[in-house]
Amino acid sequence: MLENIRVVLVNTSHPGNIGGAARAMKNMGLSRLVLVDPLDFPSSDAVARASGASDILDAAQIVGTLEEALVGCNLVMGTSARDRRIPWPLLDPRECGVSACEQAQQGGEVALVFGREYAGLTNEELQRCHFHVHIPSDPTFSSLNLAAAVQVLAYEVRIAWLAAENQPTKTLKLEATAIQSSLPVTADELESFYTHLEQALVEIRFLDPAKPRHLMSRLRRLYGRSDVSKLEMNILRGILTETIKAARGEHLGQEKADV
Amino acid sequence: MLENIRVVLVNTSHPGNIGGAARAMKNMGLSRLVLVDPLDFPSSDAVARASGASDILDAAQIVGTLEEALVGCNLVMGTSARDRRIPWPLLDPRECGVSACEQAQQGGEVALVFGREYAGLTNEELQRCHFHVHIPSDPTFSSLNLAAAVQVLAYEVRIAWLAAENQPTKTLKLEATAIQSSLPVTADELESFYTHLEQALVEIRFLDPAKPRHLMSRLRRLYGRSDVSKLEMNILRGILTETIKAARGEHLGQEKADV
Repeated sequence: MLENIRVVLVNTSHPGNIGGAARAMKNMGLSRLVLVDPLDFPSSDAVARASGASDILDAAQIVGTLEEALVGCNLVMGTSARDRRIPWPLLDPRECGVSACEQAQQGGEVALVFGREYAGLTNEELQRCHFHVHIPSDPTFSSLNLAAAVQVLAYEVRIAWLAAENQPTKTLKLEATAIQSSLPVTADELESFYTHLEQALVEIRFLDPAKPRHLMSRLRRLYGRSDVSKLEMNILRGILTETIKAARGEHLGQEKADV
Repeated sequence: MLENIRVVLVNTSHPGNIGGAARAMKNMGLSRLVLVDPLDFPSSDAVARASGASDILDAAQIVGTLEEALVGCNLVMGTSARDRRIPWPLLDPRECGVSACEQAQQGGEVALVFGREYAGLTNEELQRCHFHVHIPSDPTFSSLNLAAAVQVLAYEVRIAWLAAENQPTKTLKLEATAIQSSLPVTADELESFYTHLEQALVEIRFLDPAKPRHLMSRLRRLYGRSDVSKLEMNILRGILTETIKAARGEHLGQEKADV
């Protein structure tokens, strides 16, 4: 089950931190590392700090964008400083560990996303996350080392996993088809939905592409936290398709939907 | 109260780990570092890894023996691998954090003791501890980096401290207006939304009133669990209004929405 949980490091500067993160992961039973555009990797510094976890470095997936790193993910949680302009559903590390395990136990794919050493994640990257996670550090000295942050979240994942291992899971009794359609959609499916939604909002003249304001980020926050299932996504996509047709005057006289 | 909790590092080999430990401590609000016979300290490696926590290194107390490091301590907890020849009262990190805070809150002095990078604490050193603490790592790769182990226990101390201080770990500093607009809508506002939504779905011909199937109940389930805020509800209602206008061909030439 822990193999469904990937650690995504975005634009890491210091390879030593990648090695430290790999060691922290392996200590806590995690194995899947995804590196988004690392500045210096592979690197002997990474191997040295990994200290026996170099198998995780060897198997690390290297991609160019966060979007690629999140393909197939049903739950994306990104680390964030406390105060952001646009408030986002915020979890503490413990809730993050429990959510990751619950999702993985149902067969979902989970990503824990960590930003740059000095600048963290950009607002755009943070908006690709369903939840933000804040490690409650001292406000006067709040920035954890990257590997230390990975250690804290990986530790909470392990604690939640150990607790879950001792309890039978409720969800395994669902039928396979019910599980399939009640699984949350993946990050890439959600991105396609946002693109479709934005298109529809432009068509009905609710969204002005020249002055988008915070509209899309607010809608991302709403749908991102809602665990939209595949069935629900089909409904929402159907609504958008019909909305666009209606905006173009193509809806008159057509057949009714059958849901 | 956190100033009553000291971190004791015994016989550390790598000064970088001392720096990493200092940073982890300061991130979590701890400040008192005691070094028992460090192999290489002071050191520029320690300062580099401390990354802004060099005040903790400067104030570190350096002593020759664990006994000296523990003078005045009411509660001593030492990190340990899982299985020791002599069974000892064992705490997990969470219990360790709670015990440390309870003791410190009563005015007691607490020590968290960490052993050597490769060999941990000797049996004699472990027997000077009131409790042993085991970080539940993967048995096949169980040895955490020293600074990572300090990070985990310091984190649990902080979590317990925040709980004891009755400070929520999540931000409550939102302004009144932000709280207002982030409040979930009421049940009656949600009902009005469903009525409006159903009307829009009929207008775009997605919903056939003669054959409604489960469409509305599925959409109720989705939005019902999403804690839709008042601000989000305003956006959704705006979208529905524009969708209905579009379905009626009234959207061409109108002004853009301003969200």
